[in-house]
Amino acid sequence: MTEKTKARLPRGFADRAAQDLAATNSMMNIIRKTYELYGFEGVETPFIEFTDALGKFLPDLDRPNEGVFSFQDDDEQWLSLRYDLTAPLARYVAENFDALPKPYRSYRAGYVFRNEKPGPGRFRQFMQFDADTVGSSSPAADAEICMMAADTLEALGIKRGDYVIKVNNRKVLDGVMESIGLGGAENAGRRLTVLRAIDKLDRLGADGVRQLLGAGRKDESGDFTKGAGLSDEHARNLLSFLNLASHDADLADMKMLPSFRNDLASAGVDELLQIRGLCQAAGYGSDRIKVDMSVVRGLEYYTGPVFEAELTFEVKGEDGKPIRFGSVGGGGRYDGLVGRFREESVPATGFSIGVSRLLAALKAVKSASVEGGKKRGPVVVLVMDKDQLTAYQSHVSTLRQAGIAAELYLGSSGMNAQLKYADKRGSVVAVIQGTNEREKGEIIIKDLIAGAELASASKTMEREAYLALKEKAQFAVPEADLVAGVKKVLGRY
Amino acid sequence: MTEKTKARLPRGFADRAAQDLAATNSMMNIIRKTYELYGFEGVETPFIEFTDALGKFLPDLDRPNEGVFSFQDDDEQWLSLRYDLTAPLARYVAENFDALPKPYRSYRAGYVFRNEKPGPGRFRQFMQFDADTVGSSSPAADAEICMMAADTLEALGIKRGDYVIKVNNRKVLDGVMESIGLGGAENAGRRLTVLRAIDKLDRLGADGVRQLLGAGRKDESGDFTKGAGLSDEHARNLLSFLNLASHDADLADMKMLPSFRNDLASAGVDELLQIRGLCQAAGYGSDRIKVDMSVVRGLEYYTGPVFEAELTFEVKGEDGKPIRFGSVGGGGRYDGLVGRFREESVPATGFSIGVSRLLAALKAVKSASVEGGKKRGPVVVLVMDKDQLTAYQSHVSTLRQAGIAAELYLGSSGMNAQLKYADKRGSVVAVIQGTNEREKGEIIIKDLIAGAELASASKTMEREAYLALKEKAQFAVPEADLVAGVKKVLGRY
Repeated sequence: MTEKTKARLPRGFADRAAQDLAATNSMMNIIRKTYELYGFEGVETPFIEFTDALGKFLPDLDRPNEGVFSFQDDDEQWLSLRYDLTAPLARYVAENFDALPKPYRSYRAGYVFRNEKPGPGRFRQFMQFDADTVGSSSPAADAEICMMAADTLEALGIKRGDYVIKVNNRKVLDGVMESIGLGGAENAGRRLTVLRAIDKLDRLGADGVRQLLGAGRKDESGDFTKGAGLSDEHARNLLSFLNLASHDADLADMKMLPSFRNDLASAGVDELLQIRGLCQAAGYGSDRIKVDMSVVRGLEYYTGPVFEAELTFEVKGEDGKPIRFGSVGGGGRYDGLVGRFREESVPATGFSIGVSRLLAALKAVKSASVEGGKKRGPVVVLVMDKDQLTAYQSHVSTLRQAGIAAELYLGSSGMNAQLKYADKRGSVVAVIQGTNEREKGEIIIKDLIAGAELASASKTMEREAYLALKEKAQFAVPEADLVAGVKKVLGRY
Repeated sequence: MTEKTKARLPRGFADRAAQDLAATNSMMNIIRKTYELYGFEGVETPFIEFTDALGKFLPDLDRPNEGVFSFQDDDEQWLSLRYDLTAPLARYVAENFDALPKPYRSYRAGYVFRNEKPGPGRFRQFMQFDADTVGSSSPAADAEICMMAADTLEALGIKRGDYVIKVNNRKVLDGVMESIGLGGAENAGRRLTVLRAIDKLDRLGADGVRQLLGAGRKDESGDFTKGAGLSDEHARNLLSFLNLASHDADLADMKMLPSFRNDLASAGVDELLQIRGLCQAAGYGSDRIKVDMSVVRGLEYYTGPVFEAELTFEVKGEDGKPIRFGSVGGGGRYDGLVGRFREESVPATGFSIGVSRLLAALKAVKSASVEGGKKRGPVVVLVMDKDQLTAYQSHVSTLRQAGIAAELYLGSSGMNAQLKYADKRGSVVAVIQGTNEREKGEIIIKDLIAGAELASASKTMEREAYLALKEKAQFAVPEADLVAGVKKVLGRY
């Protein structure tokens, strides 16, 4: 006997069954419809691109970044699987620049691949749903993306108040850091330390962050984290800025802070004021779209406004304690990305939804947009006499032609196994025709749900109720009434 | 200035624009609906699998077949991009065998990858739509696949008579070859030569094929192709079998031929008789599903019935001459594929649609199922005064809230460029509000189609008609009637 191959998947990859697929499909159709209402049109790029077009060669090396799946083509050129949907869009726009309407609004959904260590809920293949406006530097483009994100969440059944679209602007924090002497390429490392410190405000509070902005911080376990080395005054300025920011203070007031004696920060606040103004004029108040200076999105390529779509309702965390659901998507302005390919500057802004995370959220709130994925199984026509296969097959066809999902049992097992199969399929109706029925020109319609009730019914059940349930669970109809009989049962559930 | 990366795609990969995507999506939804009517449920496997699970190592080598895109994981194991949807299904079924209903009917659609030389219409990434029944050896499973293929084509708008599902059985030809001494592993090469010769019957006719079955054939250019070396009697038997076969002769008669003094061939014909009987009982006559002995599908793993869905209407070929559209899908029974992973035998049968080829066919017959992909562009609200952006934005929101796809012009160009942009988007309506209109509390609705008619109208047009067209092309409404005004124009087209 030859040795068998083991059937298994590489780490970080997963199969997806019918219900999950149907729910995702239903969710994606709603997103697509909302995006099209905003004038965005679909576009799709292939899974494989030149590694250099994705910008994924290691610095100063002819070797692709290890985080992307790469392989060499027969002419030795490096190809990679896309790791997001933004880099391929930049390539697409640059390649088709003259033919595209400008500004160009588009959306795309699909799997992306990361060659990273997988973990619980962390896959090497996962789906994103992106929307981008390329060729507009107007804050109106950013505002539109925020409104569209809000509309999308509501269209999916997330109630107003259960989500917020947070907006920040990279220019503000960059400018604030510039104003305290952290500008320029030589301070990139210190800026990163500052950003990381700010990102911990929720967890460590103002004191902890002040330490991380200064000399450093020793945590409870005694471990020391080196700080950014800011002076007390600079750290204080930064914190008062963050404090004002997190209280949704009037942005115009913010410009009075010492940190804002800086053009970049000032320009950033002006853009935020414009975005907020446009949203409010369109009826999107701060209950839906809100400026929040604590939003620091990771990707290096953002150059201006950044967005984060957060769900504010609570779910049970791994330890059983309630936690906010958190982010289901985000984005921002990336004015430099298309510029990798072209001489002229091509401003762009966009938003990306983490599809499986959003799906989990919709399941958590039992949104109707994904609950539709729970379908009944098809009607199963049992095979009682093997030599009557053509007759059973024609019953199946009759049902299908009436628009009823139906199937012939195709295995070789007996009646009990066939009924178990119907149960496993989630079927509601089984159709049975043995020799007796055939001779009488009849068919038995079996209601599998009532049948299960009957099987578990109490022995002390009243005789009348028992007989009614029995009649409900199984009854005979003339062959010609097959469709009507099946519809009668389907109508019950 | 830094050197710019060239924006381009590797050979054999393509981007897809909105209209193509929408048409594909609409087509796939119809296929999905038909498959679900047959009780098939969706399942999805990842793009990346272990190379050995796909069965794609080169014989006796630790190196993957060059035809698949492969790369090594960080633990040195070989991974490959799937090259079809059948090998991953076999892995999925083997891995989840106990949990799945048996028989297991499923469908799946998605891209597959071939690392082969691309050419015109030949891509390295293309989409398949598969349906398979795993765990049934009954010809009823094969018959069902054929009926489902027929129903799918009709649901997509291919008229009865414009298609045929051809059915053959590998066992028949294998048995016939066995009967003329071509059985056993040692004759694999000669069998292949025979199959190739048969595949050329359409092009070379009986005489040419007889030569290829015998010593060999010299073509018009003088090139000689070595034949299979059959005796005259064997070649004659084979051809008379093919002749009968291609005339849809009575299969029962066929068993009288000398070639059929063979159990395998005889069993094959019996299966075909059963499939035909089941189809006919369900109302699918030979105008839709037809036994055709000339169908030779390429894949090695088929073990019994094979199917081919052919479109019989004519389209213009590359040379301008009419040719039959030909195959849009095919499949067959592959009883050995899951067995690579498991001790027990797991019979399976399936069908695969070539998505882009079917899409091309539906476009050729102008099927309504894909014509819906041609959408009008969104309403474009023009930006006349930059300081009125919030007002324009709120007009856009008003339209969207009324369910009308609309967008604010986000570029920085003047009115003419904005109208050109609307044209490029395929828009029907532009909404304009300059200072004059704003002061009067009005908005101008511009019908871009009537506007184009007006621009090209003859100077000799009657004054009355001209004025009517002018009124149609552009009119003012009070701000509150924006939605009504836009709907009036949209209703015209």
